[in-house]
Amino acid sequence: MLRIAPQDEARGIKKTMLGVCYYPEHWPEDWWEKDARRMRELGLTYVRIGEFAWARYEPRRGDFRWDWLDRAVDTLAGAGLKIVLGTPTATPPKWLMDEYPDIAPIDEHGRRRGFGSRRHYTFSSQAYWRESARIVEILAERYGRHEALAGWQTDNEYGCHNTVRSWGPEDLKAFREWLRRNYQSPEQLNEAWGAAFWSMDVQSFDEVELPNLTVTEANPAARLDFWRFSSQRVAAFNRMQCEIIRRRSPGRWITHNFMGFFNDFDHWALSADLDFAAWDSYPLGLVETFPLTEAERDRWRETSHPDLAAFHHDLYRGVGRGRFWVMEQQPGPVNWAPWNPAPAPGMVRLWTIEAHAHGSEVVSYFRWRQAPFAQEQTHAGLNLANAHELSPGGHEAAEAARDLARLGDLPATAPAEVAIVYDYEAHWVTAIEPQGADFRYPELVFRWYEAVRRLGLDVDFVPPGLPLDAYRLVLAPCLPIVSDEAERAFAAAKAVVAFGPRSGSKTSRFSIAEGLPPGPLRRFVPLRVIEVSSLRPGAKIEVTGAVAGCAERWRERVETSAAPIAVFADGQPALIARDNCVYVAFWPDENALAALMAMLCKKAGLATIKLPPEVRLRRRGELTFAFNYGDAAWRAPFSREPLLGEAEIPGRSFAVWRS
Amino acid sequence: MLRIAPQDEARGIKKTMLGVCYYPEHWPEDWWEKDARRMRELGLTYVRIGEFAWARYEPRRGDFRWDWLDRAVDTLAGAGLKIVLGTPTATPPKWLMDEYPDIAPIDEHGRRRGFGSRRHYTFSSQAYWRESARIVEILAERYGRHEALAGWQTDNEYGCHNTVRSWGPEDLKAFREWLRRNYQSPEQLNEAWGAAFWSMDVQSFDEVELPNLTVTEANPAARLDFWRFSSQRVAAFNRMQCEIIRRRSPGRWITHNFMGFFNDFDHWALSADLDFAAWDSYPLGLVETFPLTEAERDRWRETSHPDLAAFHHDLYRGVGRGRFWVMEQQPGPVNWAPWNPAPAPGMVRLWTIEAHAHGSEVVSYFRWRQAPFAQEQTHAGLNLANAHELSPGGHEAAEAARDLARLGDLPATAPAEVAIVYDYEAHWVTAIEPQGADFRYPELVFRWYEAVRRLGLDVDFVPPGLPLDAYRLVLAPCLPIVSDEAERAFAAAKAVVAFGPRSGSKTSRFSIAEGLPPGPLRRFVPLRVIEVSSLRPGAKIEVTGAVAGCAERWRERVETSAAPIAVFADGQPALIARDNCVYVAFWPDENALAALMAMLCKKAGLATIKLPPEVRLRRRGELTFAFNYGDAAWRAPFSREPLLGEAEIPGRSFAVWRS
Amino acid sequence: MLRIAPQDEARGIKKTMLGVCYYPEHWPEDWWEKDARRMRELGLTYVRIGEFAWARYEPRRGDFRWDWLDRAVDTLAGAGLKIVLGTPTATPPKWLMDEYPDIAPIDEHGRRRGFGSRRHYTFSSQAYWRESARIVEILAERYGRHEALAGWQTDNEYGCHNTVRSWGPEDLKAFREWLRRNYQSPEQLNEAWGAAFWSMDVQSFDEVELPNLTVTEANPAARLDFWRFSSQRVAAFNRMQCEIIRRRSPGRWITHNFMGFFNDFDHWALSADLDFAAWDSYPLGLVETFPLTEAERDRWRETSHPDLAAFHHDLYRGVGRGRFWVMEQQPGPVNWAPWNPAPAPGMVRLWTIEAHAHGSEVVSYFRWRQAPFAQEQTHAGLNLANAHELSPGGHEAAEAARDLARLGDLPATAPAEVAIVYDYEAHWVTAIEPQGADFRYPELVFRWYEAVRRLGLDVDFVPPGLPLDAYRLVLAPCLPIVSDEAERAFAAAKAVVAFGPRSGSKTSRFSIAEGLPPGPLRRFVPLRVIEVSSLRPGAKIEVTGAVAGCAERWRERVETSAAPIAVFADGQPALIARDNCVYVAFWPDENALAALMAMLCKKAGLATIKLPPEVRLRRRGELTFAFNYGDAAWRAPFSREPLLGEAEIPGRSFAVWRS
Repeated sequence: MLRIAPQDEARGIKKTMLGVCYYPEHWPEDWWEKDARRMRELGLTYVRIGEFAWARYEPRRGDFRWDWLDRAVDTLAGAGLKIVLGTPTATPPKWLMDEYPDIAPIDEHGRRRGFGSRRHYTFSSQAYWRESARIVEILAERYGRHEALAGWQTDNEYGCHNTVRSWGPEDLKAFREWLRRNYQSPEQLNEAWGAAFWSMDVQSFDEVELPNLTVTEANPAARLDFWRFSSQRVAAFNRMQCEIIRRRSPGRWITHNFMGFFNDFDHWALSADLDFAAWDSYPLGLVETFPLTEAERDRWRETSHPDLAAFHHDLYRGVGRGRFWVMEQQPGPVNWAPWNPAPAPGMVRLWTIEAHAHGSEVVSYFRWRQAPFAQEQTHAGLNLANAHELSPGGHEAAEAARDLARLGDLPATAPAEVAIVYDYEAHWVTAIEPQGADFRYPELVFRWYEAVRRLGLDVDFVPPGLPLDAYRLVLAPCLPIVSDEAERAFAAAKAVVAFGPRSGSKTSRFSIAEGLPPGPLRRFVPLRVIEVSSLRPGAKIEVTGAVAGCAERWRERVETSAAPIAVFADGQPALIARDNCVYVAFWPDENALAALMAMLCKKAGLATIKLPPEVRLRRRGELTFAFNYGDAAWRAPFSREPLLGEAEIPGRSFAVWRS
Repeated sequence: MLRIAPQDEARGIKKTMLGVCYYPEHWPEDWWEKDARRMRELGLTYVRIGEFAWARYEPRRGDFRWDWLDRAVDTLAGAGLKIVLGTPTATPPKWLMDEYPDIAPIDEHGRRRGFGSRRHYTFSSQAYWRESARIVEILAERYGRHEALAGWQTDNEYGCHNTVRSWGPEDLKAFREWLRRNYQSPEQLNEAWGAAFWSMDVQSFDEVELPNLTVTEANPAARLDFWRFSSQRVAAFNRMQCEIIRRRSPGRWITHNFMGFFNDFDHWALSADLDFAAWDSYPLGLVETFPLTEAERDRWRETSHPDLAAFHHDLYRGVGRGRFWVMEQQPGPVNWAPWNPAPAPGMVRLWTIEAHAHGSEVVSYFRWRQAPFAQEQTHAGLNLANAHELSPGGHEAAEAARDLARLGDLPATAPAEVAIVYDYEAHWVTAIEPQGADFRYPELVFRWYEAVRRLGLDVDFVPPGLPLDAYRLVLAPCLPIVSDEAERAFAAAKAVVAFGPRSGSKTSRFSIAEGLPPGPLRRFVPLRVIEVSSLRPGAKIEVTGAVAGCAERWRERVETSAAPIAVFADGQPALIARDNCVYVAFWPDENALAALMAMLCKKAGLATIKLPPEVRLRRRGELTFAFNYGDAAWRAPFSREPLLGEAEIPGRSFAVWRS
Repeated sequence: MLRIAPQDEARGIKKTMLGVCYYPEHWPEDWWEKDARRMRELGLTYVRIGEFAWARYEPRRGDFRWDWLDRAVDTLAGAGLKIVLGTPTATPPKWLMDEYPDIAPIDEHGRRRGFGSRRHYTFSSQAYWRESARIVEILAERYGRHEALAGWQTDNEYGCHNTVRSWGPEDLKAFREWLRRNYQSPEQLNEAWGAAFWSMDVQSFDEVELPNLTVTEANPAARLDFWRFSSQRVAAFNRMQCEIIRRRSPGRWITHNFMGFFNDFDHWALSADLDFAAWDSYPLGLVETFPLTEAERDRWRETSHPDLAAFHHDLYRGVGRGRFWVMEQQPGPVNWAPWNPAPAPGMVRLWTIEAHAHGSEVVSYFRWRQAPFAQEQTHAGLNLANAHELSPGGHEAAEAARDLARLGDLPATAPAEVAIVYDYEAHWVTAIEPQGADFRYPELVFRWYEAVRRLGLDVDFVPPGLPLDAYRLVLAPCLPIVSDEAERAFAAAKAVVAFGPRSGSKTSRFSIAEGLPPGPLRRFVPLRVIEVSSLRPGAKIEVTGAVAGCAERWRERVETSAAPIAVFADGQPALIARDNCVYVAFWPDENALAALMAMLCKKAGLATIKLPPEVRLRRRGELTFAFNYGDAAWRAPFSREPLLGEAEIPGRSFAVWRS
């Protein structure tokens, strides 16, 4: 059931601001006031605190030490800062772990992952659920009506470090319960999972095991259900916190800081309980962890790829139903990627403005000051370690603050003309059954996004099933399971709609779609996929016709009653169109993708501009922003003078025009 | 002790037929009759059923549901199909796993690998042995004399998913018992294993541990014994099933479906209890999983390498003492390799005919219809998922059926002139002690086979110790342990015999051969190996003389009283010959191997023809088959017109001549 | 606290000798006498025995079988050999493991690593401590005053196979005890570890867990402490053995055989209890296991890289306070590297003389005879397996013995003019927090060493804190933690001192140095590191000025009041100098490193000679040795005739001059 409301542009949020993450518990109390004053001087409005401090305010069960936190809150408030308070559930203290050893998650190999870092809990622990409710209740009661308290962050980066799914006895118990609720009988479970296949039948829900440590791959339908179950546990855990906070802290908003390219739970669903979305933007870290090519990693190592942050701004604006923050903004080199270069000069400033261009309400840097100890001591802050002195990134934040001041209030973000349908289950289905080792959903979506943005367009992300009336071009790069809502939304769309490979290929129970793929989408494009090939790296199949380029990674063999508008080298259909719908029966390589997007935009009547690889445009209301991620200057093809910056935009800089 | 009988050509099997694997339990009962009729129409004779159906006919202990299976059998039989019934022991049901948790295997890391996929049992479980005997007895009693029942398949793909060896308490107990039987006393065990080396002595068999989870590598002699023990457990488990079936199902044959390049148990030994061998032929899957070069994988990704299937046809014809089936034939893309392309048009047909050319009695496609659910839903069948409609591979199977009909009964397969000695212990010894990271026995044998086949010759595989009278050229690419029987067979051979590197290097107890390698083979070629070098990739040593090329991967330093017929760049002997025997003191690269085989064939007086890389010949009685795996046409150098196909064989096609 | 005495040249050890490792328990007793006689004939003086024989002289608790060992000792002694006796603690017998299962180590994944190979004990087992004391006591009592007994080797290769750290309950107990001793209170522990960071506080030492199996990375300060604790356990275990031996075996020396590039425990500290150091030299094995480039591995595969053995000779001469042995010298191909070629002809001889050139007192080959059984049967010995017959390496050892006889007594080794500060904690800190995936301390030090040696210079290794008066150039390639002693030694040095990247960056508690890196070193070079970048492979930043080349892997952003003597491409300081001190703010690539070393040598007034990549020089007293690792001859630029060898040194050979 879809819980997502239409994008809420009505609120017309225009004030754009900066913030910072701060840990008073790390610093001498007599530094706090100076820190707060310097935050304000830098142009910061918000300060996030408290999300890892549980053991510092409850060092033993029931032995609360609020004094220091009270004073910290008052000191920050006294300087005029607005406070974002984090619930502390990402780091349960040692005494609690000892009291309830079952809180610890069990990994897929059966190993207990214990205390000593963070996120050492399973969402299925009943004890942890209770204890989390207790501490959130107490915290919200104490600070929920503080006048400086702007809002809440629940927990911290749900799922980070592979913690959405846990494989222990508590998880098994909860999963069996979930199955019991979702299937009427073991017979229906057997039927839904295709248990007949390898004698996998159960006679009772209590016979179901977790789908790990099987001899070979576990049943994909069982895995999908376990992933769904786990995703729902996260959302329910978050909802529990939200309900407590709303009761105890009226009038304050609630958000959560999501991560980049993290798909282990359904962000659309969880976000329904939040007031808006937030995400943690580490553009350089993503260069090393997202599967770019090595050549791209070399090229973008100090700037990031120009779509990596933007992709997430647009995604989380969607997840937040039009509203989002950057809760943690990379201010310098980080500590967690295989390699961690310092950002090129200008980039911290550029990223900050770019986030606002994409509609972010607040950009909050992580962290005020580099911590000299523990796990992240090589992670930069706005200030040097142990010092009251701006880091290189801190100086850029100051510049960004001045930029924003010069721009004044920003107009509201209008809906884009292009929408991409982003689906967490699509990731799960293709991760559980890649069929080709490099069929990676996030990469496919990213490349489609990049190709559209290279044409100068803005993009919205939408969940499957959201009404699509606002759009002129809708892209579903891969949507294996098409729900009834999604089908209805496609049917009602007036846009050109393109479906990518594997779309419509599965039922909701992870079986092959009825009547063969693309299942319900046959209503829009008359074809059947009768065979699929995954293609090893280097294997390419030429595509000619309305689009020229190659298929790589994936190619489908399609029967269609329509005349294909592009064909593979062997004459088989590659692109099939009917009315405003197009089915893409392959993974397009770079050339094919550029041609495809150009063709679709033309079909949709969209005006495009072919941007160089290092430049991107973005509109916010009547403003147009241009960002140059390259070394060399780029002359913008706009006749009037920019509001900010120069028409000849230097490398690693930006400019803003009023249109 | 050798249990292999000489190749049985006397039976003169000539009828060649097609079959299919079918799962009535996957489909509505009212589809069965139509399926059966369409199988017959397609030209199929055999249908394999039942091997994964345990939980469907015994959903709870003793609660048997034979009705559906009775009806399925009768329906298939009624359409004129002959039935191959699989024993269901590859997939014990959940209730049985719960009753006896010890059935589950323990992997080398100590983790229990439980229910949820298949092969979740250890061959050492006494409970599973008992339960398997029980169900096979009941099954054989019920269907063993059904008039449509042609024969049996025991279990399914023994050892698949790394399940030959298990590392739990039951395994340890059985291993200790095995040692007790094989060694008279702990003292003799200590002596045999060289326990003095690192204080590894035991004072009782009950002190022996399994050779896993040691701090560094375990004793290689202990590992070899554990591998032998495990291999024998598989054979004994199979024998137990065979004995029950023979008692309850008189006059029916028994086979088992082996796999490609799978060496974890001794197939010669297990096969002694079968009537013939069968194997599961997935030519494209092997392209990705066998260590071909990346260039080869690119070249052969849609056709397979022209020796991959042929190698196994010849191997399993040997394992089956002249008789074999292809029990599962790839009919389209599969689901389990890293990449899974669809076969190029023509290949399913070509593979089918090729199997028959190599002597296969039946080629049985896997599976009748693509399953829409569970683990293999992206594995093609002869029919589209959920449909009564042939897939691309199904259409090719129909063509193959017509080809076979045109050819009529095929002549019996005559012994080849070239034999390759294939030894499972050779694989174990070199896997346990590779000495160079890329010393891979299967690859070595495959390359020697390929080089002979490139000369247009047919090849038989023989176990060490089989009389070699029939052959003119015998190749032992690597035979570390030379048994007395093997030595006698070599001594009695009239053939040219070539021994590859490491042959004769070990005693049966995994020690260095007495008097240095090649141990007992010094009787045939007068030399001693005094030093070995494994060579990192790229390191090559030139070889000149009777053979020109390079050594790679492995090079031995040899002392010999004979004049070497080829030498390394440093003047040391590389090839040593006496009378009809040649010792190859290195791993030959492609050039050296081609030259070596040409030289050996000449010495053996064999007529050869230098084939292009994409073409292979194969004789069956008076018929000669030519297979063209390439894109371009190949004109066969035969003067008369082909019986089937054209003299200018198109790419991905074949032709047949009567000689 | 520094326990290292200044290099002891006063003893003036000059006698250079050869030895061998021998296992009488592997061979028939009637071979011993012949073996001993042939050892003497070969020119060997020392024979090491006994280190793996525990189960052979105590097959059951208290059931001692000394007869065979008595006879073996007497036979060897009777032939005039001096005996080195190993304590047997590297291989506890099975009965002992069964008696105390807790002896077995637990690996980082929580798996018990049991009996069946070697080193199957944790240093934290109290039972094993007791049992080791018992057996060493008994052994020392029995043989400690034997007239042929020259000295002792404790255990064998401490830490081999990743056994310094164990992760079981005994280890946890001992670690908590260690923490209790090192921190006054849980509060101080929390403070030192920065527990505030992620609510990692403990309220009692009994709440501390081992830093493994955490959800994400464990606290680096906790890890460093656990690594220190583990290192100290090894030293204490060794000390326990030494104290017993000194009591029971007066007048005999004690050593231990260390390994190449092994840094898991502090060798400086452990060595304080030894009379001298020994190491096991396997130059070819290191080619495959040390991170050389693939091109280097290809080039040096049969000779080893010319600095790999030399590096360790110099290191262990330092560790041994001027005295060291090669306890195990590779005599031919080994068995444990991914590829194991035979050494090129001449190399075993060359390596032997090279060890003596670097000051080794004895070079002892491993092993007398290739063992035909167990784990190392493909490891060459001086004799062929099972034979009384020299192997190729055995013949070279005979030549080396003749070389040494020709050279006569060798002069004492004088201190070098260049010292490299080698610090085990530097390895730990950078391994725990690499920040860039290829920031590898051993590689950094090796490359600096290589660059100095390419200039024809000799090198000493010194621990941080050793007085540096003797040196004209001191290199600290990376010294994150600078102790007070180290700081004082640098301050007192008259040498040119160069500090590499990350030096001075950490406190002893693994926090960022006070006042920013380089912390206490700011006293010598006025700078602050305000940001660091790790650079992915291929990323290079040009450096110009006093040194030309590139930064790779690591680059710091530095603020300095001094004028930099070299700058990065962006103008930021790359090399900062004041007086005799230079700070290197990057990882120099090959060119930059050569230029840097040339510049430093010039500054230090050292005469250099630019050697080709394959040649190295080494002085011992008034002798100069030259070693040619290449294929082609090299003409030495010395006017007089060599004492040994030729002035035009053939490939893979050497020459010696009196200067």
